[in-house]
Amino acid sequence: MTQINVGILGATGMVGQQFIALLSRHPWFKVAWLGASERSAGKKYRDAAAWRLSAPLPDAIADLEVQAAAPSASAPQLVFSGLDSSVAGEIEGAFAQAGHTIVSNSRNYRMEADVPLMIPEVNGGHLALLKVQSQRGWKGRIVTNPNCSTVVLSMALAPLRQFGLSKVTITTLQAISGAGYPGVASWDILGNVIPFIDGEEQKIETETKKILGCFANGRVDPHPVVISAQTTRVAVHDGHTESISVGFDHKPTEEQLLQAWASFKPLDGLPTAPAHPVAYLRERNRPQPALDAHRGDGMTVSVGRLRPCPILDYKFIALGHNTIRGAAGVAILNAELMRREGLL
Amino acid sequence: MTQINVGILGATGMVGQQFIALLSRHPWFKVAWLGASERSAGKKYRDAAAWRLSAPLPDAIADLEVQAAAPSASAPQLVFSGLDSSVAGEIEGAFAQAGHTIVSNSRNYRMEADVPLMIPEVNGGHLALLKVQSQRGWKGRIVTNPNCSTVVLSMALAPLRQFGLSKVTITTLQAISGAGYPGVASWDILGNVIPFIDGEEQKIETETKKILGCFANGRVDPHPVVISAQTTRVAVHDGHTESISVGFDHKPTEEQLLQAWASFKPLDGLPTAPAHPVAYLRERNRPQPALDAHRGDGMTVSVGRLRPCPILDYKFIALGHNTIRGAAGVAILNAELMRREGLL
Amino acid sequence: MTQINVGILGATGMVGQQFIALLSRHPWFKVAWLGASERSAGKKYRDAAAWRLSAPLPDAIADLEVQAAAPSASAPQLVFSGLDSSVAGEIEGAFAQAGHTIVSNSRNYRMEADVPLMIPEVNGGHLALLKVQSQRGWKGRIVTNPNCSTVVLSMALAPLRQFGLSKVTITTLQAISGAGYPGVASWDILGNVIPFIDGEEQKIETETKKILGCFANGRVDPHPVVISAQTTRVAVHDGHTESISVGFDHKPTEEQLLQAWASFKPLDGLPTAPAHPVAYLRERNRPQPALDAHRGDGMTVSVGRLRPCPILDYKFIALGHNTIRGAAGVAILNAELMRREGLL
Amino acid sequence: MTQINVGILGATGMVGQQFIALLSRHPWFKVAWLGASERSAGKKYRDAAAWRLSAPLPDAIADLEVQAAAPSASAPQLVFSGLDSSVAGEIEGAFAQAGHTIVSNSRNYRMEADVPLMIPEVNGGHLALLKVQSQRGWKGRIVTNPNCSTVVLSMALAPLRQFGLSKVTITTLQAISGAGYPGVASWDILGNVIPFIDGEEQKIETETKKILGCFANGRVDPHPVVISAQTTRVAVHDGHTESISVGFDHKPTEEQLLQAWASFKPLDGLPTAPAHPVAYLRERNRPQPALDAHRGDGMTVSVGRLRPCPILDYKFIALGHNTIRGAAGVAILNAELMRREGLL
Repeated sequence: MTQINVGILGATGMVGQQFIALLSRHPWFKVAWLGASERSAGKKYRDAAAWRLSAPLPDAIADLEVQAAAPSASAPQLVFSGLDSSVAGEIEGAFAQAGHTIVSNSRNYRMEADVPLMIPEVNGGHLALLKVQSQRGWKGRIVTNPNCSTVVLSMALAPLRQFGLSKVTITTLQAISGAGYPGVASWDILGNVIPFIDGEEQKIETETKKILGCFANGRVDPHPVVISAQTTRVAVHDGHTESISVGFDHKPTEEQLLQAWASFKPLDGLPTAPAHPVAYLRERNRPQPALDAHRGDGMTVSVGRLRPCPILDYKFIALGHNTIRGAAGVAILNAELMRREGLL
Repeated sequence: MTQINVGILGATGMVGQQFIALLSRHPWFKVAWLGASERSAGKKYRDAAAWRLSAPLPDAIADLEVQAAAPSASAPQLVFSGLDSSVAGEIEGAFAQAGHTIVSNSRNYRMEADVPLMIPEVNGGHLALLKVQSQRGWKGRIVTNPNCSTVVLSMALAPLRQFGLSKVTITTLQAISGAGYPGVASWDILGNVIPFIDGEEQKIETETKKILGCFANGRVDPHPVVISAQTTRVAVHDGHTESISVGFDHKPTEEQLLQAWASFKPLDGLPTAPAHPVAYLRERNRPQPALDAHRGDGMTVSVGRLRPCPILDYKFIALGHNTIRGAAGVAILNAELMRREGLL
Repeated sequence: MTQINVGILGATGMVGQQFIALLSRHPWFKVAWLGASERSAGKKYRDAAAWRLSAPLPDAIADLEVQAAAPSASAPQLVFSGLDSSVAGEIEGAFAQAGHTIVSNSRNYRMEADVPLMIPEVNGGHLALLKVQSQRGWKGRIVTNPNCSTVVLSMALAPLRQFGLSKVTITTLQAISGAGYPGVASWDILGNVIPFIDGEEQKIETETKKILGCFANGRVDPHPVVISAQTTRVAVHDGHTESISVGFDHKPTEEQLLQAWASFKPLDGLPTAPAHPVAYLRERNRPQPALDAHRGDGMTVSVGRLRPCPILDYKFIALGHNTIRGAAGVAILNAELMRREGLL
Repeated sequence: MTQINVGILGATGMVGQQFIALLSRHPWFKVAWLGASERSAGKKYRDAAAWRLSAPLPDAIADLEVQAAAPSASAPQLVFSGLDSSVAGEIEGAFAQAGHTIVSNSRNYRMEADVPLMIPEVNGGHLALLKVQSQRGWKGRIVTNPNCSTVVLSMALAPLRQFGLSKVTITTLQAISGAGYPGVASWDILGNVIPFIDGEEQKIETETKKILGCFANGRVDPHPVVISAQTTRVAVHDGHTESISVGFDHKPTEEQLLQAWASFKPLDGLPTAPAHPVAYLRERNRPQPALDAHRGDGMTVSVGRLRPCPILDYKFIALGHNTIRGAAGVAILNAELMRREGLL
């Protein structure tokens, strides 16, 4: 497939930097345009952004001039967005109206009825919503991915839908990169736990139902599963750990659950798709963010410690890389799916 | 009340050091005897132990000669135990047989039918088990306190028994001091989460039922509550954080729950008893171990974020200092209660 | 001595909170006035500030209304300042002009020739500069304390002046609280070292010379010692650790150095003065911030690991609590000295 | 070049695991033999070792049976050693006597007059010592690399020898992986600094002189530079940071220093040799372990913050990955050099 130019909105932020790192050797997409706030516009990227990843900043990107975050003739058709939600609504809407395809990590459009909220392996079929979205009168369109902790949960639950998911309790232990940059003050989190992340629990409890839901008759019917979430922040760089209990309509055996995760189908032919979307780890003290977040180049969700739950049916631990599988990586996978489907 | 001499078994360990620190200015108990492993016996405490607390090691203790962990004429009648469970069973039994009162933090005797497993504010009445225990033929006796994470949970649940506790799910985020010393390797926990603590979940699920149970007819009937626990280790020095959901037979209002915690009765006249056994914090991001573990000199359990749970009835966060309220402090409180009851 | 009312400028910041905590039971000074930015003015302190210390916020302070940071009839005569340096110059000057005594932790006036830069045990005599300062035409005056890492170094060096200090190399490992709040982003410092603190090395190299200098003929002659500093930030909450080498004009023995530190004279009768301004720790792996920063209620500087240096004469480690001895505590001690000297 | 089989002594330890990870796709060396303590011998590697790196354990290695750490017919001619120094002396000697080439990271033979202490880019010529060593009567031989913090220092200093290195002061901030596993207890290092590493300062002060020395007349004359080291442990996983000041006989300009580092010659044709042995970073807050330790796949030493030193001539920061460039990686590079020189 030929390489096409792409843009990145919010290019200087934590998710924007992850987009750049992940696309630095991408076979289909070439970063040719960077948009950021007025403060950065007009500067070279190397001067506008303090690069904060250990992966090196590619020279070609470093020399790009940052543009204002507004539609323009120079912006490519496909634009990824890692914009802060305080501005994403307006800017992404303007780009869509101007004919761009926005593949966004921001929360603003996620729950709109005609906007796909997607994890390709889970609900790639929700792309069908774009036909509905086309009635908006936008020349372009918007596709979104879920909140980072929701991605991890949804990946772990998706293969279990066959058993009739009915109830889920989840407590998250979330990494600091999920809060962006500068994000959490070191004084607050070093040697500490913060048992509160604004808006996060509600996102988990609602977004998951849309992702796991069925598209039919021009709309997505949310999955009937009931979810109760408690979210905490811990002193981890990358990788959200989730302590999960699940109740089913048709209680499977442990073996059936392991089988369901093992047979969760990878997407063939998409460059960013991992060979194993979900990997079950048999060591009794895994998964751990420091050891497992980068599994499958950060695109595999790791699961472990499956055992019976005396309250619901089963409990287990899930873990995923929050800025790769939970943000920039899943967005890129969404775009790859769209390109394969002829939508780009 | 006059001051009596006391001993400490396992004096060089993490809990042993906490016993020494907490008893350094205790009005009723004076540390006069220290027992530890053969390797330490015969040395001055300052040479036998690497003192690891920021509270200074009292000079009088530093100069005490450490004794072998075996009954002897020199050991006081009351002996606190912070022994490792690999040796506590045999040694504590020998002391009890020899006439000592062992107030132990070790797990070995906790679930024995005739041994009180106690948190004074919760189930001080279980001291009545000592009459049963006296049939063992020991000249002395053993009283225990629960596992550290269980103490925090039991304190938070105890005032709620009136509403018919039926179901509890809990995910813990436990501090490293709970693993003793050297305990968790820094390589494993720095910037990481370990979602496994050997045996901990089973302790929470069983010990809590005994603590919340009723003493009648010479035995403790375990509380019927069903508990499902997931336990994790995080990079925190002191303070176990617990994400809890509770279902009731008679669902109370939020106001009733707050009222129940607020009116949880402190123990009057015991030196180590806090004015507020449980404190509800109204800030939306509390309790936090770094800010709240030392509340009430480490003896108050903090609770926060009460809100409805879509699966059970309510969810909230609880936090307590694991080596004070969860270990040495609660053991000292047990001994204080026994002394007030004329048992010492 | 009767208690007098005092004010705090920059009351909501990291140093401001430390002022409040340290003064909460002070026998001479009672916090009666809090000044902060326009954003906070008019609110109760409990609403204006997010309290970040584990020591509880006193109720009496929580209910005080925060005032704008400008001279007013309601402000007490003595005002402590923890203002950010971006605004301290103007505001502190205005207060001094209006007749207040400003005891400041900010850097703005430190190096002015007529402003005492003081650590009471080291150079309390520099108060004599106030006579020179009175020629400014201010109705009030300004007294300052050094930068936090400079305080620790100066305390360790002051008793050694008798041997003719000539050369000092220092590498600091500084705590995050020294950067204020929100200060260092957790993403940057967790599991990391940042080998750069803006302006810090120059402060150490110049302020130390003024502090150790002699007052004569109406001015302070800077000490001739030459200092070379490298400063780093580490993932520690409180306590700056300093790796120091010293060369002397008259090389003392190790015993003479130990004797010099041991005989460094405490200030009698000042409530905040520690019994031991400098304590030498003989354990080979001390001082450590987690264990020793709070020594002497945070006012003692700990020194350890004295041994010969193959390049200069001796090397050793020093450690002090950066927001107590290095900021709010030393400022309070400055005010105590002024009061005893009849200047307040 | 054809691939040859190699063995690893101390295969289950921290450095042993790093050997396995680095050799997993090595073009010249194939891990075919693993030696460890009696406790591990006879087990499959996956059962004998708790794998602690985020790089995955290769399946082929996982299935190897661990052997006792003693010479045997099954052990390959080339054996890397990551043995603990408490046993390395005897075991490595036995292997050398039995005809093996031991490329060791252990300290036991480093300072022996006839044993090369090598960093290939710095003093590859010291291989000539092997001719002297052959007089020992060993059928094999031993080549060593320096202590991890010494490697970083020596790499930064080597290109500066041309200016007549005369004096060096260094303070290290060392990562926990340097202490092996379990190594430093988390209780001791979390949020803390430990200003002591047993024996480390002496290693830096002596090994560096041998490495930078000249081979002539069958022996290495140590470099006359005088070094003063202070070493500390910080809460960092990988990467030793070093604060260094240097004095020269012939003081160069800053530009000359930068030029010296930039022109430090890489080794052509060795698979593990980085393109840039030393990289100077111009950002004012670099190098940092979290961002720069993996530069050049962990084989590049990063330098930054060059500026004049008021005591010696210049000061700067150096950083290197302590278990790659500072241990397993440099040992592999030593073996690559030996193979290219026809010694294997």
